[in-house]
Amino acid sequence: MDERLEALFKPKSIAVVGASRKPGKIGFEILRNIIEYGFKGKVYPVNPKATQILGLKAYPSLEAIPEDVDMVVVSVPAKFVPDIIDQAGKKHAKVAVVIASGFKEIGRADLEEEVVRRARKWGIRVLGPNIFGMIYTPARLNASFGPKDVIPGSVAFITQSGALGIALMGMTIVERIGVSAIISIGNKADIDDADLLEYLAEDPHTKVILIYLEGVTDGRKFLRVAQRVSLKKPIIVIKAGRTEAGAKAVASHTGSLAGNVVIYSTLFKQTGILQARTVEEAFDWARAFSYLPEYKGGQLVLVTNGGGAGVISTDTLAENGVKLEAPPKSLVDTLKPKLPAFASLGNPIDVTGMISNEGFVDSVLEALKNPEVGAVMGIYCQTAVTDPMVIASKLVREIKAMGGLPKPLVLTLIGGEECYWAVTKLNTAKIPTYPMPERAATTVAAIINYSRMREEVRERLKELGDVSD
Amino acid sequence: MDERLEALFKPKSIAVVGASRKPGKIGFEILRNIIEYGFKGKVYPVNPKATQILGLKAYPSLEAIPEDVDMVVVSVPAKFVPDIIDQAGKKHAKVAVVIASGFKEIGRADLEEEVVRRARKWGIRVLGPNIFGMIYTPARLNASFGPKDVIPGSVAFITQSGALGIALMGMTIVERIGVSAIISIGNKADIDDADLLEYLAEDPHTKVILIYLEGVTDGRKFLRVAQRVSLKKPIIVIKAGRTEAGAKAVASHTGSLAGNVVIYSTLFKQTGILQARTVEEAFDWARAFSYLPEYKGGQLVLVTNGGGAGVISTDTLAENGVKLEAPPKSLVDTLKPKLPAFASLGNPIDVTGMISNEGFVDSVLEALKNPEVGAVMGIYCQTAVTDPMVIASKLVREIKAMGGLPKPLVLTLIGGEECYWAVTKLNTAKIPTYPMPERAATTVAAIINYSRMREEVRERLKELGDVSD
Repeated sequence: MDERLEALFKPKSIAVVGASRKPGKIGFEILRNIIEYGFKGKVYPVNPKATQILGLKAYPSLEAIPEDVDMVVVSVPAKFVPDIIDQAGKKHAKVAVVIASGFKEIGRADLEEEVVRRARKWGIRVLGPNIFGMIYTPARLNASFGPKDVIPGSVAFITQSGALGIALMGMTIVERIGVSAIISIGNKADIDDADLLEYLAEDPHTKVILIYLEGVTDGRKFLRVAQRVSLKKPIIVIKAGRTEAGAKAVASHTGSLAGNVVIYSTLFKQTGILQARTVEEAFDWARAFSYLPEYKGGQLVLVTNGGGAGVISTDTLAENGVKLEAPPKSLVDTLKPKLPAFASLGNPIDVTGMISNEGFVDSVLEALKNPEVGAVMGIYCQTAVTDPMVIASKLVREIKAMGGLPKPLVLTLIGGEECYWAVTKLNTAKIPTYPMPERAATTVAAIINYSRMREEVRERLKELGDVSD
Repeated sequence: MDERLEALFKPKSIAVVGASRKPGKIGFEILRNIIEYGFKGKVYPVNPKATQILGLKAYPSLEAIPEDVDMVVVSVPAKFVPDIIDQAGKKHAKVAVVIASGFKEIGRADLEEEVVRRARKWGIRVLGPNIFGMIYTPARLNASFGPKDVIPGSVAFITQSGALGIALMGMTIVERIGVSAIISIGNKADIDDADLLEYLAEDPHTKVILIYLEGVTDGRKFLRVAQRVSLKKPIIVIKAGRTEAGAKAVASHTGSLAGNVVIYSTLFKQTGILQARTVEEAFDWARAFSYLPEYKGGQLVLVTNGGGAGVISTDTLAENGVKLEAPPKSLVDTLKPKLPAFASLGNPIDVTGMISNEGFVDSVLEALKNPEVGAVMGIYCQTAVTDPMVIASKLVREIKAMGGLPKPLVLTLIGGEECYWAVTKLNTAKIPTYPMPERAATTVAAIINYSRMREEVRERLKELGDVSD
């Protein structure tokens, strides 16, 4: 483990070069986020024109700081960055977070190379340039100019895009998706996706890693690392530039190559990486992986009170490579006497629209408790004879009484306003729940496909004689 | 036009056979919805044990009603339905809405055929059986046991699934999607999708038709009618049972055949029907078609303040068959002096994350006003220097001042809570807006693909010598 990466996530002290007194300025927003999100280490604003910023003593230069600093956040115009790196070197900084843009993305690869050259000389790792910063919630570190109040949790999000990354940071807050880390990786002049994957693989606070990826510079390194990391934790990738037109758009966006449009998908599959088709899907999956216990094999059973929603879910699962088998006989025997005569005891188990709140919850729980069942998808359509909030409350209570979920459960609650509240309630209790059947079904498929892919990767590594885990 | 279908949508009077005094009972809920949603015609509750229900005089039988009735809603056990049809016939009813279940879906095709036989004898059309009823908002008619306060608008929704249909009815309310009609079509013993398509094609209140379809009984009729209707209005289909596993689930759900899993998609395309992959997508598209003016050709231009979101949108459009060309020179000339130096004037036009509220809105409006542009997609990532609510307000105001949208505009606003409010504000002003770039992009693709498919269908009909329109 590179201890300098440790300083990226858990710095003991931070200097903000280019700290500003003006709200709205990047150098102000970052400093404020660092302070207000509750970072416990030392913070040094650096600004030659100020003596104090946001209640902290300001320093005219890095040199003027009386102690060494672990992390230097650099928010000054691009042309000044190389010299700041030298100054950071003299302060024995381990990592520089270079917010500044104006490098490779506008044709100044030379300036970017100069930054890296100087950093290497001093032994400093560089995040960026051209980024909005980074967040690591276990250290109460928000060194970004994105939204402040990100919710702690176990999703790590690495993004190559700035504006989209900040916007999605906001989205995690409103969707109440808890994050361990958000890292704006920008031009990847030094620290790249593979470096971060290696670190996050060992991070006990991270359960799942989500990457917005336009292109990788060292494809072999990325795949070699990803293959090993995906044995430990799911990696979900949103690959932008996956069509020719998209790849062209990438080139004009970051100047990086999006790579061969077909090869990526195949490589992801072989490496055990889950490729999401949309941002929504990626976050839907990340939410479930962050909430749920591991899927350890065993049958997937669907329980539905709406035949049509059951059909749609079956279609979506099949389209994502997941087939359903008849439910375990022991489960059918348990449920049959409790369900209406016209209930269908196949898979999906259709408990019918006549089912009560208790009946629906009980059926889901029975499926969950059955030893032959490995995962359950509960599909609920709002009806006149049930109340989604009652169902949500009952499920939360019963699952809590069980000591938490013993195996993956994914729910969809389809209906009006009450359903939206019930979806929020269940997600808050870490039972992944979606307002649309297809969103729940692709999530279930991701869970099962991850388990399968991981097994395949493990087998392949064994064959190659690489038996370590 | 079958005047009996006219009576389904605009009955002058309705008898509810099986009207109940007990809240929660289907016969109560339907009667209450009819009254409380504001139906202006006469309403006759029929219940041999009651003299008054919900403030209306109740009749012991249909026969006891002093006048003829247009529509008879039948909510009694299946075995009594054939006799009710005879009684309705004596009252010169034009249409029977048979809520009751217990027919073909549980193996009683015989009873269903008997109902149809009797109805034909009397010249009555039958909706159902096994349905939750129907809604037609221009007539303030809610003869269903679904949610009451559906929002009037121009989306017609036909659903073969009951529980899912009711749940999605609730969803339209919370998502503020206005509907002209919601029709639960159930077992389709008599009135089928094609009949309803023919009626809705002529309905001035309906701009787009959405169908949840498991299977059709008369495929040729469906396609023949759909082909003609899709020349007038977009038809969006959610086809359930599109995989083998799904088709099997359909069989155990409604007993109908989902049909060959591959053929449907091809037929839909040839017929000009838009096939949605998910429920979310279907409603996303329906919303846009219901709000927007027709797309009449011309270039599609994307305007984004986030490069990554632009790339994702480009990918999604390409995956859905829509290619982007360089923006019109006249538009580039107009925008260039107004935008930051590092803005990218390709397609997408990347106005950069440094753009102000005014700059973003102005760029979208310039694109909209350009005579060579036929449709615009605006992609907004929430940044520190902009406010989504200000952008939404400005857009609503400016577009209102233009006298409404002259051509299709679809927006995505990606970010935190403020974005969610801004999305709602824009949708309320009938500017279709989505919280995810892919949702906006597939919607834009649906608009362009519909226009293309329609042209192809028109050409084909011309070749066949069928020149009427």
